[in-house]
Amino acid sequence: MAAFSKRTGKKVRPHAKTHKSPVIARMQLDRGAIGLCCAKLGEAEVLADAGIGPLHITTEIAGQPKIARLVALRRRADVMVAVDDMEVARALSDAMRAAGLVLDVLVDVNVGQERTGVAPESAGELAACVASLAGLRLKGIQAYEGHLQHVYKEAERRAKWRDCADRMLRAREAILQRQLPVEIVSTAGTGTCAFAAELPEVTEVQAGSYPFMDCDYAKVEGLPYETSLTVLASVVSRQRGDTAVIDAGWKALSTDSGLPVVKGRPDLQYAPKGDEHGGVKGARLAPGERIELVPSHCDTTVNLHEQYVCVGRGTVEAVWPIIARGRIQ
Amino acid sequence: MAAFSKRTGKKVRPHAKTHKSPVIARMQLDRGAIGLCCAKLGEAEVLADAGIGPLHITTEIAGQPKIARLVALRRRADVMVAVDDMEVARALSDAMRAAGLVLDVLVDVNVGQERTGVAPESAGELAACVASLAGLRLKGIQAYEGHLQHVYKEAERRAKWRDCADRMLRAREAILQRQLPVEIVSTAGTGTCAFAAELPEVTEVQAGSYPFMDCDYAKVEGLPYETSLTVLASVVSRQRGDTAVIDAGWKALSTDSGLPVVKGRPDLQYAPKGDEHGGVKGARLAPGERIELVPSHCDTTVNLHEQYVCVGRGTVEAVWPIIARGRIQ
Repeated sequence: MAAFSKRTGKKVRPHAKTHKSPVIARMQLDRGAIGLCCAKLGEAEVLADAGIGPLHITTEIAGQPKIARLVALRRRADVMVAVDDMEVARALSDAMRAAGLVLDVLVDVNVGQERTGVAPESAGELAACVASLAGLRLKGIQAYEGHLQHVYKEAERRAKWRDCADRMLRAREAILQRQLPVEIVSTAGTGTCAFAAELPEVTEVQAGSYPFMDCDYAKVEGLPYETSLTVLASVVSRQRGDTAVIDAGWKALSTDSGLPVVKGRPDLQYAPKGDEHGGVKGARLAPGERIELVPSHCDTTVNLHEQYVCVGRGTVEAVWPIIARGRIQ
Repeated sequence: MAAFSKRTGKKVRPHAKTHKSPVIARMQLDRGAIGLCCAKLGEAEVLADAGIGPLHITTEIAGQPKIARLVALRRRADVMVAVDDMEVARALSDAMRAAGLVLDVLVDVNVGQERTGVAPESAGELAACVASLAGLRLKGIQAYEGHLQHVYKEAERRAKWRDCADRMLRAREAILQRQLPVEIVSTAGTGTCAFAAELPEVTEVQAGSYPFMDCDYAKVEGLPYETSLTVLASVVSRQRGDTAVIDAGWKALSTDSGLPVVKGRPDLQYAPKGDEHGGVKGARLAPGERIELVPSHCDTTVNLHEQYVCVGRGTVEAVWPIIARGRIQ
């Protein structure tokens, strides 16, 4: 990703929701990242505590308890947020103004994921509202096409991305037409950043999964990243014929994106066996024997664990806590 | 569950894999539980550290690293384990003998879940092996019918349970025929303990979910337990018409058993929106507005969170850490 940034001139603001680790965030900054994205305020609080910044919170922040936390965080850290609602923008403005602070803001644009964000044609009006409010500083737009990251076929992904790009560019244009600044155009994940790099209007990408990947991302054509993340499991029982039972179930491996695969053993298949157990079909494995599983979704699997055990040259070289695990608010 | 135990005379050894909390374990002991079940060694270590016991580990333990931890745990705690393999029994015996310890053992019987456990007709042979090994003390059988807990219709659940009960009783008989002891017959979860109570041979139940329940368990006919566990979420965006976007996605609510439901609002439906977000269809909710979600599976949802916020009489009365969260090995 550092090489991508050098080659394309696009800045990288990696998403910390994948790794939830200040150690990895620091490695990304050392390799040229301009800051970190966080999904939630709680993640940003943990990274700020570890001296990581600047931080951009990609999910909208609303309601007085969270706004009070955001004010406290802004006092001690360089924080930017995404906004998609005028009433919320006014509440943020009131809070920042009262605290004597200024908060950087990206207008969140719905480019097709249909989750958060305003329609492109409403981006100008929201930007004007933000620009008019004391305590807020309009920096540009966030246009994340999360629904395209796992479209496996490159041609299909590119074609769908083109629609998202059009919406992103229309939103940018709508803001510029009002003589307002769009310094930042923040977009793309691991699956689409190569496309985003082709647009001169894009200033940065928000990719998160590239350090780890997973067995679903591995199916996405055209990505240069290798899978680095596995869950180590061991056999607890061999009483079911050619299906060994291991100690890794739904509490060890997320299920939102399908089943994990057994690393280096295409002859073996994982079969669900509940919260605490998994089945491994295809070979007779002995109790205590170990296998490595490549998760189907890195973000939600990392969120289940307490630490990374970092293995290099056949030995454990480091153990890093997943400090922001569970910080979902 | 305490009333059930008094009424039926069956002992209760609640399963800590659901709550992963020494505080709740202590409450269960105070209400008459004879000890706690743990799914994994890591869970048992945390409970032992908190002075909770005796402990029974329901998943087989195999491999030297885990056996070494079990020896260390046995030195300081009253621990029993499930065994389904003669080779593993011998390894446990060697380790316990070398340490000058004795470990209580239940023979794990496969009563139809097809996960761990020996066939009923092999229970006698395995029991004889365990009984012959120094450092191990044969206590009886574990016969858990996990696959029946969520069979919604009571008549169907009972009919299927009858087969499991037959297998359990055959295993017990096979051991008794060898003049070996079956002091303990440990079986049943929240969904089947009422049936198990009808058998004089059953000594205890392993129910875990009853303190919390969930929206899937709520569909199981004939259970007297109420739902107590919810996830508090707040609206972050209202740009998608009648679907509000909230801050609770796959990292806040497990997906292995379906979708959560909105507590007290049958007019609202949860819709998945990825790791960090959820959708709530059916009403226009304002940013910052809060809703409570009843998870579809209490065990795997609890495992995502750091703490219980205990609310009574409209106020927060306690905050309990989920200390054994993530202890999956």
